[in-house]
Amino acid sequence: MNGSEAMVKTLLAGAVDICFANPGTSEMHFVSALDRAPGMRCVLGLFEGVVSGAADGYYRMAEKPAATLLHLGPGLGNALANIHNAKRANSGMVNIVGQHALDHIHNNAPLNSDVEAVARPMSHWVKTTMSASQAPLDTAEAVSQARSTPGRIATLVLPANCAWEPSDPGHYSTAPAQTTAAPLTESVLAIARLLSDRKTAEATTLLLGGVALRAKSALLAGKIAAHTGCKLASEPRNPRLERGRGRVNIMPLPFAVDGAVAMLKDSKHLVLVGSASPVAFFAYPNKPRMIQQPDCQVHTLATLTHDIHATLQALVDALGANNTVPAQLSTGPIITDLPSGAPTVEHIGTVITALMPENGIMVEESVTTGRQFSKLTHQAAPYDCIEITGGAIGWGMSAAVGAAVACPDRKVVALIGDGSAMYTVQGLWSMAREQLDVTVVIFANRSYKILRGELANMGGPEAGENAKRMLDLDRPYLDWVSIARGHGVPGQQVTTMEDFANALRVANKEKGPRLIELVM
Amino acid sequence: MNGSEAMVKTLLAGAVDICFANPGTSEMHFVSALDRAPGMRCVLGLFEGVVSGAADGYYRMAEKPAATLLHLGPGLGNALANIHNAKRANSGMVNIVGQHALDHIHNNAPLNSDVEAVARPMSHWVKTTMSASQAPLDTAEAVSQARSTPGRIATLVLPANCAWEPSDPGHYSTAPAQTTAAPLTESVLAIARLLSDRKTAEATTLLLGGVALRAKSALLAGKIAAHTGCKLASEPRNPRLERGRGRVNIMPLPFAVDGAVAMLKDSKHLVLVGSASPVAFFAYPNKPRMIQQPDCQVHTLATLTHDIHATLQALVDALGANNTVPAQLSTGPIITDLPSGAPTVEHIGTVITALMPENGIMVEESVTTGRQFSKLTHQAAPYDCIEITGGAIGWGMSAAVGAAVACPDRKVVALIGDGSAMYTVQGLWSMAREQLDVTVVIFANRSYKILRGELANMGGPEAGENAKRMLDLDRPYLDWVSIARGHGVPGQQVTTMEDFANALRVANKEKGPRLIELVM
Repeated sequence: MNGSEAMVKTLLAGAVDICFANPGTSEMHFVSALDRAPGMRCVLGLFEGVVSGAADGYYRMAEKPAATLLHLGPGLGNALANIHNAKRANSGMVNIVGQHALDHIHNNAPLNSDVEAVARPMSHWVKTTMSASQAPLDTAEAVSQARSTPGRIATLVLPANCAWEPSDPGHYSTAPAQTTAAPLTESVLAIARLLSDRKTAEATTLLLGGVALRAKSALLAGKIAAHTGCKLASEPRNPRLERGRGRVNIMPLPFAVDGAVAMLKDSKHLVLVGSASPVAFFAYPNKPRMIQQPDCQVHTLATLTHDIHATLQALVDALGANNTVPAQLSTGPIITDLPSGAPTVEHIGTVITALMPENGIMVEESVTTGRQFSKLTHQAAPYDCIEITGGAIGWGMSAAVGAAVACPDRKVVALIGDGSAMYTVQGLWSMAREQLDVTVVIFANRSYKILRGELANMGGPEAGENAKRMLDLDRPYLDWVSIARGHGVPGQQVTTMEDFANALRVANKEKGPRLIELVM
Repeated sequence: MNGSEAMVKTLLAGAVDICFANPGTSEMHFVSALDRAPGMRCVLGLFEGVVSGAADGYYRMAEKPAATLLHLGPGLGNALANIHNAKRANSGMVNIVGQHALDHIHNNAPLNSDVEAVARPMSHWVKTTMSASQAPLDTAEAVSQARSTPGRIATLVLPANCAWEPSDPGHYSTAPAQTTAAPLTESVLAIARLLSDRKTAEATTLLLGGVALRAKSALLAGKIAAHTGCKLASEPRNPRLERGRGRVNIMPLPFAVDGAVAMLKDSKHLVLVGSASPVAFFAYPNKPRMIQQPDCQVHTLATLTHDIHATLQALVDALGANNTVPAQLSTGPIITDLPSGAPTVEHIGTVITALMPENGIMVEESVTTGRQFSKLTHQAAPYDCIEITGGAIGWGMSAAVGAAVACPDRKVVALIGDGSAMYTVQGLWSMAREQLDVTVVIFANRSYKILRGELANMGGPEAGENAKRMLDLDRPYLDWVSIARGHGVPGQQVTTMEDFANALRVANKEKGPRLIELVM
């Protein structure tokens, strides 16, 4: 048994049985080891951003880490943006990154670079395996790190000789390095006291993150809100939300700083439940950096390292709210009257709300177009929503790959802006290769529309020729149907709300990947 | 005047008048400053690897650095692979990377990361501007670094407030931080003595790199070879070669270690002229790491910091070889009889040799298919060849963009393997947007064929199902004509040598981008 085989055995022992891969020469022994491991499913991406984004989407839906296989420093570089998004989603991930043989690194061959240095900014844990016999131990530690709660990015650099030299399978623990801590009783009681005064409660917002946004935990939050009069909100973008009819609707803070500040304007107390103190996505010359008012008191009820559901249950118990009917239950009527004519942002939201398949998975990277969707989409049939958390656009196409691999029996609907979709457009091919059940909706506004708005936000003059050349995706327009066909995915362009609805209906009825380009 | 405007003024003062860009919100003030600088040409890439690869291709042909504009750590991450290739080509480049405002970094907003740490592995020089008033000075230093010989990767991190706060234009020197040094007389005389013995000279190889591979320097190398009997070779992949009829043909060391070792087997002396001691591209269990024999003596005649042309001229002078007819002049007949039928590697090389446009620019990332091309293509009409130097595939599509921007009057012919082309496929759109005169030839062997060979090189068993799933680009095949159309580039698929030749002829006659998919 060589080092690679010992590693693959260790991965499988730690329940890491999916490998999203874009290998090169230095990884050939690892590829060969994967080849002889029938329990391991290998999914090829034709660009490394697809690989890391898929691992993120997979973790969010499977609730366990996948492995990635990447080729030296530059391959890892290509994966960094989506590793960043995964890190910001607290997704666990085991990156296996090839490196030159240990006795060849100092020869500085063309592909040589400091792989650990490339890994470090976006990883929680980085290590280079120094011998084949150490490979299974290092792999076990990487798996333990990735399986922690919250998840961690573990990057293991694998010199080629450690992959090919003899090793021993080893039998090292792959148990999570960190599991959730019990609720903090003191904090629970303090927040219960805070909320026991109606007026104080009405000036309090519970900011929910992490698993607090799953249906069963959100239901507890809804009881707390109903019982005390406090408000509920989530961070603007979240790793995973369970939304839809019959569930407690927790509205996100708006992405734009002004709207977010307005939402927390009257909050004198902000209670963090698996979330962080909210900050502006970007700084602007004359806008605040922090979202809450300067005199707002911030309390931490639970961090992501705590058992958030148990914490919320403890708070419900302390308040005596177990039998309270939850606030903000989405009970809106089923939409049957669909809009027609030219697309508007509101009409698009209505159609998506009406046609989101029950138990589907929404992948949310619609950027400008989708800013107001959440006001409508909580009325859809119950579904999961995973969102771009780190702001590094180019995530949705690849996250959809991972989510669909994790949940083969659920329809994935990926809502993606045209600008964003281009960064990991190669994800389409992986959808075709794996025949993943994904409907990709491209919102073709043919510009980095968010930046048009941001240019105005900065208070500068109207965009001139050079600015337009950098902000508009025109001359020529992208032809998404051809791009999809080129990658093996059937596509359709629509320009009216009727055609959009029809295209979604067809997609919902059939399995497999397809793309709908909605021209705005 | 704000910091951005002072920076753009400084860039222009340093003759940096092209900005390959993929900006985001934090760069909006810089975009606005570019907008008001009519002397600056802004070229949008829809993915950051296109941006950095284009800056590399531009430097190689324009012989001066371009700027790139990138969005925080993740945007820089996406650019790293081609920055790596540029670094390995000794290309100069000024990367302007946005960062959060200085008073917002510690708030750890979603897009926050350690940008300097991301930059460092692939940069020679990294700095974060700490105030708007310092922005022009830092920019001047970045330009000075990038304009050095050899070129350097200068990465300037620009916090948003330093871009928007008031500054002064400044008038700082942008002169190169390092210029070439005069020839080392002692070394020249020592090599002249070495080569004065015929038998020793015949066991000596001059390994040429950098500008030694330009026609006028290669001509001197040819005189030295003819006069002394020494051999000439280049590194396997080079930043830029001037090749073709009437020029001295310097054969590269083969990419594969066995072939490279065979080429230097009888060399007792290796003389480095702007090159590095050759090493295996990858290490293999039972193959050597170094290319020359253990008893081969390595001499340095000139490094990349020396005036290489003057050094070769001094050696010619010392040898009295000024009137010698150069060795290895490419004088082969013009090919008129073109092959027909199914494509073979040799036939493809013949067609490309026959139809390479005079004074054209060949972008070489043909990987497996093109391994033997150089045995034929030196017989083509005179042309420049730029090659992938760092082994991070995904370079050609973007380097072609940069080369075409640098040389609008020259036809660019980009030879790219299908696997490689996918990593920066978005470059096609930039070709369409800028109406660049590029013919992209995709060698569609529908696999990472190089890896099929490398798997065998590793001595492993035949590829099984998992390995095939990671090495073959099939199920489905990529449809390159559709992909090209989707990006606004007309394309054509060909399967015979006649059709390939006809497609190249049509492309040569017309201006603008087009793609030819040659199915192997």
